[in-house]
Amino acid sequence: MAQRPSIPKGTRDFGQDEMARRNYIFDTLKSVFRTYGYSQIETPAMENLSTLLGKYGDEGDKLLFRILDSGDPFSGVDMPSFRNEDGTWRAAALSKELCGKGLRYDLTVPFARFVVQHRDEIAFPFKRFQIQNVWRADRPQKGRYREFSQCDVDVVGSDSLLNEMELLQIVDRVFSLLDIRVLVKVNNRKVLTGLAEICGFPDKVTDITVAIDKLDKIGLDAVKAEMKDKGLDDKAVAVIEPILTLSGTASEKIALMRGLMNGGSASGVVSQEGLKGLDELEELFSLAGSAGIDSEVEIDLSLARGLNYYTGAIFEVKALDYAIGSICGGGRYDNLTGIFGLPGVSGVGISFGADRIYDVLLALGKFPERLGSSTTLLFANMGAGEVRYILPVAAALRKRGVSVEIFPEEAKLKKQFAYAEHKSVPFLSITGASEAEAGTVNIKNLEKGDQRTFLSSDLDGILAFMGV
Amino acid sequence: MAQRPSIPKGTRDFGQDEMARRNYIFDTLKSVFRTYGYSQIETPAMENLSTLLGKYGDEGDKLLFRILDSGDPFSGVDMPSFRNEDGTWRAAALSKELCGKGLRYDLTVPFARFVVQHRDEIAFPFKRFQIQNVWRADRPQKGRYREFSQCDVDVVGSDSLLNEMELLQIVDRVFSLLDIRVLVKVNNRKVLTGLAEICGFPDKVTDITVAIDKLDKIGLDAVKAEMKDKGLDDKAVAVIEPILTLSGTASEKIALMRGLMNGGSASGVVSQEGLKGLDELEELFSLAGSAGIDSEVEIDLSLARGLNYYTGAIFEVKALDYAIGSICGGGRYDNLTGIFGLPGVSGVGISFGADRIYDVLLALGKFPERLGSSTTLLFANMGAGEVRYILPVAAALRKRGVSVEIFPEEAKLKKQFAYAEHKSVPFLSITGASEAEAGTVNIKNLEKGDQRTFLSSDLDGILAFMGV
Repeated sequence: MAQRPSIPKGTRDFGQDEMARRNYIFDTLKSVFRTYGYSQIETPAMENLSTLLGKYGDEGDKLLFRILDSGDPFSGVDMPSFRNEDGTWRAAALSKELCGKGLRYDLTVPFARFVVQHRDEIAFPFKRFQIQNVWRADRPQKGRYREFSQCDVDVVGSDSLLNEMELLQIVDRVFSLLDIRVLVKVNNRKVLTGLAEICGFPDKVTDITVAIDKLDKIGLDAVKAEMKDKGLDDKAVAVIEPILTLSGTASEKIALMRGLMNGGSASGVVSQEGLKGLDELEELFSLAGSAGIDSEVEIDLSLARGLNYYTGAIFEVKALDYAIGSICGGGRYDNLTGIFGLPGVSGVGISFGADRIYDVLLALGKFPERLGSSTTLLFANMGAGEVRYILPVAAALRKRGVSVEIFPEEAKLKKQFAYAEHKSVPFLSITGASEAEAGTVNIKNLEKGDQRTFLSSDLDGILAFMGV
Repeated sequence: MAQRPSIPKGTRDFGQDEMARRNYIFDTLKSVFRTYGYSQIETPAMENLSTLLGKYGDEGDKLLFRILDSGDPFSGVDMPSFRNEDGTWRAAALSKELCGKGLRYDLTVPFARFVVQHRDEIAFPFKRFQIQNVWRADRPQKGRYREFSQCDVDVVGSDSLLNEMELLQIVDRVFSLLDIRVLVKVNNRKVLTGLAEICGFPDKVTDITVAIDKLDKIGLDAVKAEMKDKGLDDKAVAVIEPILTLSGTASEKIALMRGLMNGGSASGVVSQEGLKGLDELEELFSLAGSAGIDSEVEIDLSLARGLNYYTGAIFEVKALDYAIGSICGGGRYDNLTGIFGLPGVSGVGISFGADRIYDVLLALGKFPERLGSSTTLLFANMGAGEVRYILPVAAALRKRGVSVEIFPEEAKLKKQFAYAEHKSVPFLSITGASEAEAGTVNIKNLEKGDQRTFLSSDLDGILAFMGV
């Protein structure tokens, strides 16, 4: 017996039940994105390596899946020149020589490339969503895959805070439809810059935000220790500490922060950038109030999410009833397309984590029933003549949109029942010669056990009985 | 100015209009597949190279995109041992050493791998469809891409001809919904085997079918010449020739062929295999008659489509009103899973060519109108106060499923109009301070030019005016 075939580690097959559940999530996202005027695009799985390299840091470069050039990639490459004196290889350089393409690592860089490449065809502001797979050569572990789906929604070419607010509305609507209670955390990169300014270390904004971003994971004392490690003095830490543990409503937090940014902190420094960030936060909450958002939205001044990328609003969404980390996040960036030669295009976007949302829905039992089964009605196969009698009935039901199967073999009924059970088919018809004679079909509700007989032409009756 | 970024040759970006059209095709396929009880699965983009190699012939092996192993793939590889004496490299062997994974080349081999790997969880007959991209390092040319979508629907684990007939029904329904008139050609591999037997060259079945498969492209004389090249004598060619140009209804063709297979040809040879193939064709047409199929279905004895793969029915679909080659095809195979150690699983399937169907629909103007635009109503941005007035109205319309945008910037109206025009938004609202005062919104049909004013709470009226 040959060994069973397998798939590369970190990748997954999705069977019918998983697909039905995943499609439920994707369809919900798409339907909401569309009501806000976002249009779907797709980009190739492979990008030129020059598009990808250097965009995700050194660590990211290592995690790119590279595609060996087709034909003979080795001829014309001076292989020995890629060898170090100790006999090891300069793997990165040689990989680059042998591979001109890589699999996309996220949807953001391909989107930036798309915007620059197609800028003459695009109407700005450009509102796009994209749901595609990405690949990362990460060490596979629970919940971390080498191939996974990203669901990104972004608008570029507009500075208006209305865009940020619409993303909050989208988040609110998506999780309301999915019936997941969420907490939406909001921050603003400019406030973080202001924080670094008023504590007297404006050049340490990265170190400070990297440290406070860990507050949830490592706790206040460790964050303070890390800031000191990075060179902040006690006075600076004393300015930051109370801000991290700030409580109250959004307006209370903003009012308090406004005082501090306006010279009211121990340092007495005024931060114009910080004040601008607070204005933006205030405007965002005010717009959200006009639009009406049901989800809980709070200001979290420790939220940073990859600081170097974001320039304005920063978002993160957590499920309230299941601990799994962030299930959605994003923010505003001001120079996404600059790396490809088109500066000055500001954008804001969020990304939904389909795998985590899947886990939340599954854990909370929130997937709708009947998603898992594709077939509504199975006609048992009672013989060639009965099948011929059933064929036009099945065809008519299918035209009405009902999912119908006729068991293809005249197998023992026990086997046919087992098939219906395995596929969770809710309705079964055992239409035999006498029904064919009478021009009827009988249909049994396998869950409730009740059975009825219909004229084969009574499609409305059959549909009503099956509740479709 | 930096050079504009680009994508690898043979790959494509899909913008919003192309996506809308592609989704229309995919959604139609999915809806029909589902009414026949087929369930969607997905497999990883990357498969182990051992899964893919040797499945598509030597030429196919060369066209596989290989993924360089992550980390340092070069250490531990004795590179010089892959060098030929003339200094060239044994590219295939070295690629295999450096790359353990490849991108899938089609959906059939991954499906076979899936069935074998998950056979304990699957209920047979297993009806699956799969719509995913595949990658081939082919020379790119018009209509041939290095990344493209395949749409496959297969059932494995059942010998019943009902499956073949259901695939004909699926073809019929799909192209009826897409409003493409098609000709469905049907043949049977066993009849081709019979043909080789009665012409006296049973071992030349591959050569014969490869030759006659070209009839459409190269014409009868060239086919005859090729058969002679392959070693057939004049007598054998004389047996085959009239069969290739056979006309008449399906029953007439079957009756005539039955005579020939039953010893009535010049050779007098009887072919049991050929007679079995004719029985299958007859049964298939008979079942189709019971089910009711509107498309034109004809027997084409020159249809072969990759003979070594198929063992029974062979299908091919052509558009009647646009010449583009086959837009759908498939057949029965008897040992798909044997290569992975699970023999004896028969299956039948067809594959829809999304790119060609796209071209046909575009050329014939058969895409529905309004697919291209995602946004139904654009509210012009007349200022911050007006936006706040509009926000809850827009939110309420979106909850009713309408795609609504509010232009994010208070830009000149000319610019906002241009945006609406570029996106082909059909309805525009210029709701200003006086409308806000009166609690109304006005909506203009940009196509017809008529405009109406509604109470902002009159969602039903607004929806009716926009016809959604």
